Amino acid sequence: MTITTIGFDADDTLWHNEDGFRHVEERFVELVSPHAGRGVDVAAGLSATELANLRVYGYGVKAFGLSLIEAALTLSGGSVPSSVIGQLLGEIRDLLEAPVRVLPGVPEVLAAVSDTHRLVLITKGDLIHQTRKITTSGLAHHFHDVEVVNEKDPETYASILARLGVKPEEFCMVGNSVKSDVVPLLTIGAHAVHVPYPLTWALELTDASHLDYDELSSISDFPAWLAAQ
Amino acid sequence: MTITTIGFDADDTLWHNEDGFRHVEERFVELVSPHAGRGVDVAAGLSATELANLRVYGYGVKAFGLSLIEAALTLSGGSVPSSVIGQLLGEIRDLLEAPVRVLPGVPEVLAAVSDTHRLVLITKGDLIHQTRKITTSGLAHHFHDVEVVNEKDPETYASILARLGVKPEEFCMVGNSVKSDVVPLLTIGAHAVHVPYPLTWALELTDASHLDYDELSSISDFPAWLAAQ
Repeated sequence: MTITTIGFDADDTLWHNEDGFRHVEERFVELVSPHAGRGVDVAAGLSATELANLRVYGYGVKAFGLSLIEAALTLSGGSVPSSVIGQLLGEIRDLLEAPVRVLPGVPEVLAAVSDTHRLVLITKGDLIHQTRKITTSGLAHHFHDVEVVNEKDPETYASILARLGVKPEEFCMVGNSVKSDVVPLLTIGAHAVHVPYPLTWALELTDASHLDYDELSSISDFPAWLAAQ
Repeated sequence: MTITTIGFDADDTLWHNEDGFRHVEERFVELVSPHAGRGVDVAAGLSATELANLRVYGYGVKAFGLSLIEAALTLSGGSVPSSVIGQLLGEIRDLLEAPVRVLPGVPEVLAAVSDTHRLVLITKGDLIHQTRKITTSGLAHHFHDVEVVNEKDPETYASILARLGVKPEEFCMVGNSVKSDVVPLLTIGAHAVHVPYPLTWALELTDASHLDYDELSSISDFPAWLAAQ
């Protein structure tokens, strides 16, 4: 059956994202390490806090910000000065207000495939921040629909497809996360293409070596892949 | 034209919300006042911080949490101890994890009107927190659709109605905020019914005395109102 509808992931697929988080993590380590006990792995402590908070805080920059502050307090045994908390808040605001940096080839690919296919944007994260990035990216007009979701699991994708009135075999997802943009689609019988980004968040890592899917080195190769289906 | 579709607001319409925020504001004043300069209006300072951050942080508990911490730092000139920051983080987590307290009459009203009308839930706020409240409320099965939006303005409502395929004159919104649940609906030619909650957030106050709409003292009066249209 022909693919009629393409889902694109947003962060690290259409624009840079993870490098901004990594920058703040590095600042966190610089700022908090002097106040943590000797031998404390401050970066690992932050990751553990993020993972523990995921269920309650969800994804996105504001959740990350609250975890940063909580981890600064716990890892320092409450000894971190309030000036550090202020600097962490400043880093979060900078992330939220940073201009969108669209990845190479993306505008051309969206222009090419939107002539022949219906495009939807499917992203996790913070509703206001993702909306702001979409509306300021200059790419919004290519998308029939934008879905900001809590979790990219098979149920979520199935419900989006039902809402769009498209069968799984008519749908292809394109994204940088095997865990979020590939595995759940194969589970429901849809297509998926992996376009890696140089950095992957620890919580998005997964083992999918047993699965059969295509990986493209650049999103610019996607129109040709699509034409060959 | 007959009303076919009813939109319900969630916070302070279906369940208690504002009282939880008020409780945290009172704790904030207790915790931060001892560290603020004499004569500083700590509650007003918090409101001003929230308003200034609205554009970047959006609505919801996580946004409120980041504003609480920022305001604690600014109002105390950076002198607030980290233990206070930890207590504020704890209050935020409590708000996020608090069980939903459904308002009196709500389950009966939804059961009554869902027999004859299509119901949609339309709420601002934090995606993961609103989703959690909806799924744990025991009310989710009444709703055809759930929309968590950044802003309840005429454009947002118009786009939801278009997606539902319903004309403005066939749609009625029910909610506790004149600013968010009544005025924008009258602007686009839809119906709206105001059901006040005893508390209103300062940023939701508006003057709509020149507008003509019905106000019900209890949501339990809504089925009769609807039958009389």
